[in-house]
Amino acid sequence: MKKGIKIVTIGGGSSYTPEFVEGLIKRYDELPVRELWLVDIEEGREKLNIVGNLAKRMVEKAGVPMEVHLTLERRKALKGADFVTTQMRVGQLKARIQDERLPIKYGMIGQETNGAGGLFKGMRTIPVLLEISEEMQELCPDAWLINFTNPAGMVTEALLRYGSHPKVVGVCNLPINTRMTLAKLLGVEVERVLIEFAGLNHMVYGLDVLLDGESVLEEVLDIMSDPDRQVSMRNIAPLPWEPEFIRSLGVIPCPYHRYYYKTGDILEKQLEEFKTGTTRAEVVQQLEEELFDLYKDESLAVKPPQLEERGGAYYSDAACNLISSIYNDRGDIQTLNVRNNGAISDLPRDSAVEVNCVVTKAGPEPIAIGELPVSVSGLVQQIKSFERVAAEASVTGSYEKALLAMTINPLVTSDVKAKQLLDEMLEVHKEYLPQFGERLTQN
Amino acid sequence: MKKGIKIVTIGGGSSYTPEFVEGLIKRYDELPVRELWLVDIEEGREKLNIVGNLAKRMVEKAGVPMEVHLTLERRKALKGADFVTTQMRVGQLKARIQDERLPIKYGMIGQETNGAGGLFKGMRTIPVLLEISEEMQELCPDAWLINFTNPAGMVTEALLRYGSHPKVVGVCNLPINTRMTLAKLLGVEVERVLIEFAGLNHMVYGLDVLLDGESVLEEVLDIMSDPDRQVSMRNIAPLPWEPEFIRSLGVIPCPYHRYYYKTGDILEKQLEEFKTGTTRAEVVQQLEEELFDLYKDESLAVKPPQLEERGGAYYSDAACNLISSIYNDRGDIQTLNVRNNGAISDLPRDSAVEVNCVVTKAGPEPIAIGELPVSVSGLVQQIKSFERVAAEASVTGSYEKALLAMTINPLVTSDVKAKQLLDEMLEVHKEYLPQFGERLTQN
Amino acid sequence: MKKGIKIVTIGGGSSYTPEFVEGLIKRYDELPVRELWLVDIEEGREKLNIVGNLAKRMVEKAGVPMEVHLTLERRKALKGADFVTTQMRVGQLKARIQDERLPIKYGMIGQETNGAGGLFKGMRTIPVLLEISEEMQELCPDAWLINFTNPAGMVTEALLRYGSHPKVVGVCNLPINTRMTLAKLLGVEVERVLIEFAGLNHMVYGLDVLLDGESVLEEVLDIMSDPDRQVSMRNIAPLPWEPEFIRSLGVIPCPYHRYYYKTGDILEKQLEEFKTGTTRAEVVQQLEEELFDLYKDESLAVKPPQLEERGGAYYSDAACNLISSIYNDRGDIQTLNVRNNGAISDLPRDSAVEVNCVVTKAGPEPIAIGELPVSVSGLVQQIKSFERVAAEASVTGSYEKALLAMTINPLVTSDVKAKQLLDEMLEVHKEYLPQFGERLTQN
Amino acid sequence: MKKGIKIVTIGGGSSYTPEFVEGLIKRYDELPVRELWLVDIEEGREKLNIVGNLAKRMVEKAGVPMEVHLTLERRKALKGADFVTTQMRVGQLKARIQDERLPIKYGMIGQETNGAGGLFKGMRTIPVLLEISEEMQELCPDAWLINFTNPAGMVTEALLRYGSHPKVVGVCNLPINTRMTLAKLLGVEVERVLIEFAGLNHMVYGLDVLLDGESVLEEVLDIMSDPDRQVSMRNIAPLPWEPEFIRSLGVIPCPYHRYYYKTGDILEKQLEEFKTGTTRAEVVQQLEEELFDLYKDESLAVKPPQLEERGGAYYSDAACNLISSIYNDRGDIQTLNVRNNGAISDLPRDSAVEVNCVVTKAGPEPIAIGELPVSVSGLVQQIKSFERVAAEASVTGSYEKALLAMTINPLVTSDVKAKQLLDEMLEVHKEYLPQFGERLTQN
Repeated sequence: MKKGIKIVTIGGGSSYTPEFVEGLIKRYDELPVRELWLVDIEEGREKLNIVGNLAKRMVEKAGVPMEVHLTLERRKALKGADFVTTQMRVGQLKARIQDERLPIKYGMIGQETNGAGGLFKGMRTIPVLLEISEEMQELCPDAWLINFTNPAGMVTEALLRYGSHPKVVGVCNLPINTRMTLAKLLGVEVERVLIEFAGLNHMVYGLDVLLDGESVLEEVLDIMSDPDRQVSMRNIAPLPWEPEFIRSLGVIPCPYHRYYYKTGDILEKQLEEFKTGTTRAEVVQQLEEELFDLYKDESLAVKPPQLEERGGAYYSDAACNLISSIYNDRGDIQTLNVRNNGAISDLPRDSAVEVNCVVTKAGPEPIAIGELPVSVSGLVQQIKSFERVAAEASVTGSYEKALLAMTINPLVTSDVKAKQLLDEMLEVHKEYLPQFGERLTQN
Repeated sequence: MKKGIKIVTIGGGSSYTPEFVEGLIKRYDELPVRELWLVDIEEGREKLNIVGNLAKRMVEKAGVPMEVHLTLERRKALKGADFVTTQMRVGQLKARIQDERLPIKYGMIGQETNGAGGLFKGMRTIPVLLEISEEMQELCPDAWLINFTNPAGMVTEALLRYGSHPKVVGVCNLPINTRMTLAKLLGVEVERVLIEFAGLNHMVYGLDVLLDGESVLEEVLDIMSDPDRQVSMRNIAPLPWEPEFIRSLGVIPCPYHRYYYKTGDILEKQLEEFKTGTTRAEVVQQLEEELFDLYKDESLAVKPPQLEERGGAYYSDAACNLISSIYNDRGDIQTLNVRNNGAISDLPRDSAVEVNCVVTKAGPEPIAIGELPVSVSGLVQQIKSFERVAAEASVTGSYEKALLAMTINPLVTSDVKAKQLLDEMLEVHKEYLPQFGERLTQN
Repeated sequence: MKKGIKIVTIGGGSSYTPEFVEGLIKRYDELPVRELWLVDIEEGREKLNIVGNLAKRMVEKAGVPMEVHLTLERRKALKGADFVTTQMRVGQLKARIQDERLPIKYGMIGQETNGAGGLFKGMRTIPVLLEISEEMQELCPDAWLINFTNPAGMVTEALLRYGSHPKVVGVCNLPINTRMTLAKLLGVEVERVLIEFAGLNHMVYGLDVLLDGESVLEEVLDIMSDPDRQVSMRNIAPLPWEPEFIRSLGVIPCPYHRYYYKTGDILEKQLEEFKTGTTRAEVVQQLEEELFDLYKDESLAVKPPQLEERGGAYYSDAACNLISSIYNDRGDIQTLNVRNNGAISDLPRDSAVEVNCVVTKAGPEPIAIGELPVSVSGLVQQIKSFERVAAEASVTGSYEKALLAMTINPLVTSDVKAKQLLDEMLEVHKEYLPQFGERLTQN
Repeated sequence: MKKGIKIVTIGGGSSYTPEFVEGLIKRYDELPVRELWLVDIEEGREKLNIVGNLAKRMVEKAGVPMEVHLTLERRKALKGADFVTTQMRVGQLKARIQDERLPIKYGMIGQETNGAGGLFKGMRTIPVLLEISEEMQELCPDAWLINFTNPAGMVTEALLRYGSHPKVVGVCNLPINTRMTLAKLLGVEVERVLIEFAGLNHMVYGLDVLLDGESVLEEVLDIMSDPDRQVSMRNIAPLPWEPEFIRSLGVIPCPYHRYYYKTGDILEKQLEEFKTGTTRAEVVQQLEEELFDLYKDESLAVKPPQLEERGGAYYSDAACNLISSIYNDRGDIQTLNVRNNGAISDLPRDSAVEVNCVVTKAGPEPIAIGELPVSVSGLVQQIKSFERVAAEASVTGSYEKALLAMTINPLVTSDVKAKQLLDEMLEVHKEYLPQFGERLTQN
């Protein structure tokens, strides 16, 4: 990194990009980025230009010597990169709408990172990321691949097991978000709070919460048990937790756990949204259009405040903190998706887990937490089984594995309907599932 | 066992008893039982007399020198026993009706060994079995406790973790039943078929099927994929498996797996039965009445053929084979619920598992199978987590643990409704849940 | 096996063969062997003829319709085999003498299955067995490879990890021998005694001893603590155990454990034998010559009693019992070297272990014993590490791995001398170590 | 810690104390220690006064407001402590001389933290530390117990398994020493070097060495293979490693590994020292006397440079860095002895291991490294078995366990001599082994 840092952002035309650019600008002193390459595909050319030009205006206004490059040529961008972040949406929001609506049609939860929808988002995304992994091994073998693309758990699983490039981390803004929110609820500065996270992406629990090194778990469980103070995410129905259940669980669930502990309630709500056309994807589509209208405004040279409603709060912090800690050999603790390596004893050693890591120049290394509490280990193990089969299906394009992944997912409630749903989704998304080639025409 | 074998059957007034007696009579040469003690409680006095007298007539007719004793004094019966079998139903069929109907009322599957119903059957049963375990340690420390009482997985878990008496085996007729059925479907004698079972009770998979030592798994998967030849149990709706799912699973599911892979379909069916008053418990109640009417007939001195419709096919074979193999140091392979001891690597070493064991005078010892296939390990691990929490709730009478067990069960679909259902079931069953004492009146 | 069983014995010219032939003759009713092929190499042609002709005379005298074939063409023999037993000595007794004498020269224990000697015996043997494994996969894919060749633990490790043919079992007469001896010491019939063996080949412990299914471990530990009644093997100096040590160990060591718990005492004894030329190999060489002189006697048509002094007591029983149990789907318990598969939790799942197995048509399957007692687990784990590195050295011919295996072996007491000893042994045995080719001339 | 930090040093009369005091003075700005209590026992009163007065002079000269208290009343000192460091030598150097000389008399290695000597040092020390652990739980339940007393691995094992006080860390200066030395050999600043340590105390390996986050393991292995540049400790004979062995090992051994990989060579050297009366303990005794003569000099108010020859280089840095990182919630990486918690997959989860930890206000948490390389796992596992049995013997005073620990230690080469040596050592040290009470007079 002699001449300064080169960062490549694949899916650079994303509406989130201004937040990332803002994060880099703010941290320029500690993280002197010389080149930021925003890469996208032909279909995203227009968005890339809108977002990219905003990024250039932001950099110029901030007065930092960071070059912003826009390109559709991924290989050119990757050459000599130090960090590659990936945040694409294969099939765009159009595909997400299908991921959310089709399962509901069969009476099952429709969600972009869980259940049948998550499986399909994974199967569309993983082959592209494996390609990137291969190109990185060739063009920038020392660079870190920092994946934000959902479903980040399944994607990291696939990159670790089947990828060419070993330097891989999966990142999600949920842990940092939870930390921020809990700090606020506790009324303390965020630096004083440490949450001992363990589990999988979107299936992570806070096993303990430390304030200045002392456990305040009991107090936090009280907060979580109070419907008025519970933590949620913008993209999840904020149905309140049953207070006594939270106490019995003994650890902090994440907002996505509602899909598993409130399956019936959420399904009911979704069936309603399905009819009124207000599924999350449809809401987001609206938001995105508004955002891009704002971005086009040539007088805009900062991240517009409306972006915060989009749902990716602290996403930029998660990304920039990780890059900066590696670059500066900082040795701080961050919650990341990495190879388990025994850190969580009851999960496979070779699988991806989301767990607190210490981050140095050598990358993130997971802190050992022993066994998960029995109250949560079963569900985590079940989702890990699903992710492993889903990753295999994504890579091999095996119809059988895809059906298996679909049916063993706990949000899918019938083997017979699983097949019908699978067939319909394979057909609908076929453009983005080349690995299933032959089968698609036969079924 | 110098003076011949003493067997004690707790819950001796069960309608199944004649089958067990028939099994003992048939095997008298290899298994010379001197005393059979049928024990029941005051509430079951009448049934005990009816069944016990039939048993006496059967023995007399067969001309074997086996004494049949009927008693309500359990301690007296246990003294000096060699084998103790347990097959009681705490709360009788009346309680089972509630186990099945109440969950359905909340939109969830009602079943006596799975979901909320299974949890309550376990919580009623486990304290009684722990009492028996304690008495055995005092009165017949060398005897084997052979438990048939459902939910056998949860019960064996509790006996192994919390019981005083270490010589415990859980037995279920499902494995032997499956073997018999597969042999028939393959058109071969049952002795030539060996199924490599592994998992938990009512959550067991056939990992391989050997005919004369050679795998015929592929052929059996074909059979399982054929709706006309699939295996089911009398007490489970015989909804056909999706053929391609069975192939993708790669192992043989058991009939109870329908609750997990066909949750939605079964729920639909149950909602219907709920309305028409034909839940399984209600059907069984009818059958039982008819059976006891038959048993009363003093001219009857054999097991009546109608018993076979009751659902416990081969139950007697499972029990008698186990007792005989221990007694005769036979060293054959049987599928039993025992302490895992590492036999299934991805399940806790101290937990109960259902797995092939070699049975000698030293009792059953599990054969190591390594890791479960990824296609099934997640679900098995999830149910094991549930069983562990459920066993703890049963023993401690902790409301919190009971709510936790209820909510993490995959057939329970809402934390809020879980609490409502729990409260209602605790109230309804309170007579049989003394360990929850105080709480019941508070909630 | 339609036309009767075909057994191939590689290393057929061994002095042990008459015992095996006697075993087959005795069991002809249960194990109707149609063809026995004795295979050897050019160097062993003379011995093969002597032993083979004795075998023919024995069969003829017994009047069983078993064909005995003698051949140097291994591939021809293997074609269509049902069972292949291997009992060769690559480099003959001449090599064994070096294995025993050279380490002593460097002040270390010289033994053919332990320490530096064991490593070299393994490195000479493993490549030949991997060749056989490959040929079997081609010529008799359904046959079982039953290996008696020492060091059986290291050899089975290599066959399981690197071999082409999966149906592999390692057999040693030590467990059956111990059972026979303990039965005699207990004054009971051998059938009533079951020893729960676990560990590695020549590193196996009796965790429990059952008489009619009840533990008599305490009594056996008393016997083992009594110098007059301790168990040894013909090839190990019968130095008495320290009684209090045996009690503290809490399990039954095997005779070879003397090399590890009495290293100093044995070394002293060996230094003496070294000077007088009476190392075990030299004693055996003498015995072998006498045996072959006997075998040549054309009037001899039974196994001569002198063979028993050779040290392989019950070797034939171990081999024949295994073959018969597989053939007859007997399901009895035998102590064998097989893939661990989790049976011993604290050893690698993919490694070879020596443990009680149930033997059916499907072959042997290990019985799970959980964790080894802490008193012995460390030593067993250390030897397993050595075996894994040794197997890798044997297969790859890596000088570095050979040096590593040598140095981490607990009977080798200096890294510097390890290298000197390695270099001398590589030179001395080079004819039988083609895999190390280049290196030999360089060092 | 409102009123400033209170540190208690048990064994405060140690000759090392001035180094610790110097470390605290240097770090006063980041670590404002208000009170330092030096505690010793009656036998150490004189040394305590000498060292304590030097400490007071050092503090005064430095002009920091830190109170130094000298006391023989441990309970009074412990009350309200924030950190308790333990660095005592039960039985003083007199006992160490016996630990080193007696094994040599029986032809075995004599060393104070390995072999028979280490076992006895542990058995004398552990009961005292368990007492301290109990008192801390009562008098300063939030304080960290930071143990420097050797054998630190065995002691930490005992404190974790049998102690009352959970906040325990074992510290050794070897890792920091190695890091310093390697940095020097690499010619770089120490901050740029990170060694991935894993194993047990005095049995730890450097699995990787990172310079600015990139592996320089190969280069370091080259250095280690070069006799002129190898790392040793003052208290271990600096016999050079066999270069090709180091390369084959593939990881960095620690100086103490010489006892295991050069057993014969070291023994030879020790037999010589034994005769000339220059065992390490005897050398140290001489050094200590000289040091205390210096300390008495009232004009001395700094740590005298001669202390560095004593062998505890960087011991103060190890202690102060740990205390400061906890106090300041620093989150840096240090190599410490803590509960494994799965960090090293092939060691027991509940055992003490020495491994890189991230240190925050919540204390040290181990970084997961997965499995140890096969080249070293066996030896580490063997020593862990020994430590577990030794800890049990220390706590229970069981003669049988002590004999077992002694015999299974790889530096003890005969069960018979093990007993003789055990009996002699129990007699010699009986004053400091009250837990063995009865037995001592019987044997």
